[in-house]
Amino acid sequence: MHTDFIHPFVQAAVNVLRTMASVAVQAGTPSAKPHAAMGQGDISAVVGLTGPVNGSLAISFSEKAICQIVSHMFGEPVTAINDEVRDAVGELCNMISGDARRLLAEQGYPLQAAIPTVIEGRGHRIRHVVAGPSVVVPFTLDGETAFCLEVCWDSEST
Amino acid sequence: MHTDFIHPFVQAAVNVLRTMASVAVQAGTPSAKPHAAMGQGDISAVVGLTGPVNGSLAISFSEKAICQIVSHMFGEPVTAINDEVRDAVGELCNMISGDARRLLAEQGYPLQAAIPTVIEGRGHRIRHVVAGPSVVVPFTLDGETAFCLEVCWDSEST
Repeated sequence: MHTDFIHPFVQAAVNVLRTMASVAVQAGTPSAKPHAAMGQGDISAVVGLTGPVNGSLAISFSEKAICQIVSHMFGEPVTAINDEVRDAVGELCNMISGDARRLLAEQGYPLQAAIPTVIEGRGHRIRHVVAGPSVVVPFTLDGETAFCLEVCWDSEST
Repeated sequence: MHTDFIHPFVQAAVNVLRTMASVAVQAGTPSAKPHAAMGQGDISAVVGLTGPVNGSLAISFSEKAICQIVSHMFGEPVTAINDEVRDAVGELCNMISGDARRLLAEQGYPLQAAIPTVIEGRGHRIRHVVAGPSVVVPFTLDGETAFCLEVCWDSEST
């Protein structure tokens, strides 16, 4: 995997959260996630990507962070995960995928996105089925860990 | 969504489990899953599909059923979810998606599959981000509920 592929997703996450929720999230350092390790969060969205390379994007939020983000989006306080929050997580994933795909297309990698899936359940773990490592980027909001973004590609695309 | 689209996935699940694990699973009646309802299982795999229609396939196993299936695949007893079981769930999803896509291509719907994702965590719930209902098919093994297979397509493809 061309490690520069992570940057359009990082940039898209910052763009989308600034535009949709007026929040300024800070991206941490990307790291390769060992195959055996798994993401963990309270609510996540995953979207498959196909094209010149096949891959997957996952975004996993803490309950506190997604409630804070969605409160900004809706302009009213949201204190727990409900159906509106679930829809918002899927929609944010869709928009981040869309913005990243726009940037990747400009670099000569036009990708298609599948239907996003939202996964919920305290301490659920996500594992991409891919031979190589995934790249994970932690994001903070107001100095606290807010969510992780993870991107993987199939090994033929490395 | 053309409801006939579910049949290639059902047939693929039966084929793959018979071939890979020598188990005969029985498909129940397909039903539309309301938007608000969410799948529930101990371990699941999701794979995005793109092409003339965009969609997603999810398969959600009980721990008991996947241990039974993987014990057959490996030829030795497996009693709890471990890394080999996680890999097997992803691989079964890949093979079921592949067999279903072969059948769909014969019907004029060539689809590409993204990287599958395996999700774990007791009582985790999965929700496709799609305007229309998903179609869910329960499967039994030796008379007991073993897993559910769920397929959805985007609304533009209905």
